Amino acid sequence: MIDPRVASGLRDLPPPLMIPRERLLGTFRDVFARYGFLPVETPHIERMEVLTGKGAGSDEVLRQIFEVTNKGGTPGELALRFDLTVPLARFIARHVEQLGVPFKRYAIGSVFRGERPAKGRFREFVQCDFDSVGTESPLADAETACVIHDALSDAGVPAFTISLNNRKVLDGLLETLGLSDRSAAVLRAIDKRDKIGHEGVIRELTRGVSEHPGKHSAADQLPEDVSWKDDPDLAALGEATAHSPKPESDEPVSIAHISPDQAEKIAQFIESARGGLEVLDRAEAELGSHERAAAGLANLRQIVALLDASGVSLDRIAIDLGLARGLDYYTGVVFETNINGWERFGSVASGGRYDNLASLFTSRKLPGVGASIGLDRLIALLDEAGWLDQEKSSSTAPVLIPRFPGVEPSVFLSLAARLRKAGIGCEVFPDPIPVGKQLGYGSSRGHRFGLIIGPDEVPKQEFNLRDLSTRQETKGLKWSDLESAVTQALAP
Amino acid sequence: MIDPRVASGLRDLPPPLMIPRERLLGTFRDVFARYGFLPVETPHIERMEVLTGKGAGSDEVLRQIFEVTNKGGTPGELALRFDLTVPLARFIARHVEQLGVPFKRYAIGSVFRGERPAKGRFREFVQCDFDSVGTESPLADAETACVIHDALSDAGVPAFTISLNNRKVLDGLLETLGLSDRSAAVLRAIDKRDKIGHEGVIRELTRGVSEHPGKHSAADQLPEDVSWKDDPDLAALGEATAHSPKPESDEPVSIAHISPDQAEKIAQFIESARGGLEVLDRAEAELGSHERAAAGLANLRQIVALLDASGVSLDRIAIDLGLARGLDYYTGVVFETNINGWERFGSVASGGRYDNLASLFTSRKLPGVGASIGLDRLIALLDEAGWLDQEKSSSTAPVLIPRFPGVEPSVFLSLAARLRKAGIGCEVFPDPIPVGKQLGYGSSRGHRFGLIIGPDEVPKQEFNLRDLSTRQETKGLKWSDLESAVTQALAP
Repeated sequence: MIDPRVASGLRDLPPPLMIPRERLLGTFRDVFARYGFLPVETPHIERMEVLTGKGAGSDEVLRQIFEVTNKGGTPGELALRFDLTVPLARFIARHVEQLGVPFKRYAIGSVFRGERPAKGRFREFVQCDFDSVGTESPLADAETACVIHDALSDAGVPAFTISLNNRKVLDGLLETLGLSDRSAAVLRAIDKRDKIGHEGVIRELTRGVSEHPGKHSAADQLPEDVSWKDDPDLAALGEATAHSPKPESDEPVSIAHISPDQAEKIAQFIESARGGLEVLDRAEAELGSHERAAAGLANLRQIVALLDASGVSLDRIAIDLGLARGLDYYTGVVFETNINGWERFGSVASGGRYDNLASLFTSRKLPGVGASIGLDRLIALLDEAGWLDQEKSSSTAPVLIPRFPGVEPSVFLSLAARLRKAGIGCEVFPDPIPVGKQLGYGSSRGHRFGLIIGPDEVPKQEFNLRDLSTRQETKGLKWSDLESAVTQALAP
Repeated sequence: MIDPRVASGLRDLPPPLMIPRERLLGTFRDVFARYGFLPVETPHIERMEVLTGKGAGSDEVLRQIFEVTNKGGTPGELALRFDLTVPLARFIARHVEQLGVPFKRYAIGSVFRGERPAKGRFREFVQCDFDSVGTESPLADAETACVIHDALSDAGVPAFTISLNNRKVLDGLLETLGLSDRSAAVLRAIDKRDKIGHEGVIRELTRGVSEHPGKHSAADQLPEDVSWKDDPDLAALGEATAHSPKPESDEPVSIAHISPDQAEKIAQFIESARGGLEVLDRAEAELGSHERAAAGLANLRQIVALLDASGVSLDRIAIDLGLARGLDYYTGVVFETNINGWERFGSVASGGRYDNLASLFTSRKLPGVGASIGLDRLIALLDEAGWLDQEKSSSTAPVLIPRFPGVEPSVFLSLAARLRKAGIGCEVFPDPIPVGKQLGYGSSRGHRFGLIIGPDEVPKQEFNLRDLSTRQETKGLKWSDLESAVTQALAP
């Protein structure tokens, strides 16, 4: 007998996990389509060269990649994708002449990372990405936040905050402090501000950082469903597609050599950097004379105005000029999204603007903006918060018709067909076991009503409708009233 | 620069291919749910042992499997699934105690086979499977055909035929002829009847078969999107899960030693074996005294009665007692589905009943019935037949709002938000390039209307609605009438 377990780090998704997933994915598809994003799918298997960039990737990256070989194939040639962005870059480079720009695509699919398995982190998980490629317009920046907003609203999340930053603002700050060459160390310190506080950031900045950039967070912080857009380690890989130098991940980072005075200025800046439009006013006063910072601040101001025009309530939006994650890769606006009261789950939708998506594959410059919704993290959060509609999650068909012993089964099938035609999901139990057991099956599956027809009901063309949770039964309903009676019973 | 091609045998799915796929998959999910089938997902990666069964599989099977390795993993331990049925067997064996039976699941996902790439055949393709496990009821048999029927009807296929057979009928025929031990050779000959005719079948039966069973059809006949349920080679592998001996695929099949008289009887039987209920009458006259054959015929009769009760038009159903494909694996009813007039595409939905799904993984006997819809083949057929709704396929948002130069873009975003709230998909062009170019983008993307607001329209709070195919433009519409005017324009 073969052990039916799955391999380490993988999982089966039974119906109670799948039903809310399918519902959320349906919601996301609707939202993406409503904005004119078009679906694209690329193979799960890519050529290794596409995934690892020109030279070999860092050890960290190679360790996460699943190699794929078929008999007769050359080992090392193929691998499973680890995100949907590198395949997007390849796809666009290959098809851009036929597609034209701007090109707005969404993609939903499994990605694979051979990380050390841990609770809540899996080696296969689903990403939901959308990107507008071939435009530098702030309209596309604002639209990215609109899509996140609509997707979460339609998913039933009661309150969330989309935080915005623009890479250029911190660039400007660092430049005015003469620290442009130390942005990696600074961004890493800023990233920890919520954990270590003002003094901690200063300590971190002044003592420098000696960790390996490729290792400092993946093992214990990286959730399974973030894009490399939101993932410092994979962002390092992503840089390969963003025309940036690769990190030398096996070298320790040099001590940052930041003076206490510089560190204090950085810590002060990020401390008052979170809030509404007043944050932009303050920052403009401080950095407005710096061209690059001013451009970043103006971009943020315009995005907020466009979101307002789009009907997005501004209490869903926060400026956060200390938002550092992903800045290594992005070149303009950056997004993160937290669910109010559930910030400890981390961002459920993140993204930003990049200068050049596909430089590894084409000389054509393709700027764009996009984001990724973390399906698994969002579902885990909704589940823990009690915001998943349990009733809708437990069964896909609300009505069970028991196969009452002694009744010709065609009776059940013809009534079931009528219900389905009326848009009411309906399951007929296949075997004539005792009716109590059949109703027990219905309760455990989450069917809401049992539609009961025994030998007594058949000659009268009647049925009884039993609420499977309250066990109340309405008797003597007429077959001729089937659709209306069941519709009424199911009405909220 | 890295070449952005995909690996051999794989493909990108751009929007014109993805949009009809998404629409069909949405239809299938709705139909599955309407019958109480629950969604299940299993990992793309399975343990090798699960896929290849107890001993190693045949060379043919191993050649098709993609092996998966990550750094630190042991080579040969993991592989990509080649269908959704072996994972179903493993899943059920692992979870059956919590799931209970009957258990009705559907699964939609990519499977991988390292076959030699050829036109229209890919190494990754999508299967749509549904199965009722843990029941021997003919209601579940009939329901399988009902689901195929509803899925194809809802997909917009105008006319199709679901052919039914039951393995027991041919078993009975062979037993009465003393040929029970030669069923493989007989089934193979019968399978070719449409190509080689009556005389050909006799010739084939009397001369025997000397091909290798593992090779005789895969290379030039196997389409990319059939389940092993419908696939002679993979059915051989599937048998491992069905408690049957494995074929010795590297041995030539022994000559069948069927006499001309026996061959003539077989050829006669299958010649009059296709049609309506009269076929069952004839077969009952001939084989009714044979217990197993009679049971098979009674099962078919009952399924037809139940389909009739379910409102399935009987001209969608055909009895075909010569339907041989898949009989090696199935133990009861067998289904195949052809689109009328497009039979050369082969079956688009096939399946049947099996005695014991998961015998490799559990001692619990799990009978069931199910089928697989071949998404890619169906789409290829619908496309060639002109039955794909081109308008719906070309774009997901019907309205394009050009970003007219000189107009504050918040105007466009606020009107776009109103349209989306009214359920009308709407895309705002991000860059203020010449409006003619923007409208050209809309035409090429398949947007139906351009909603034009220039500097003249803004003070009057008006817009013009341009039909992008006819180029007719309705001018001077009021912003206050936005939703109703666009809804009316979009109405068929």
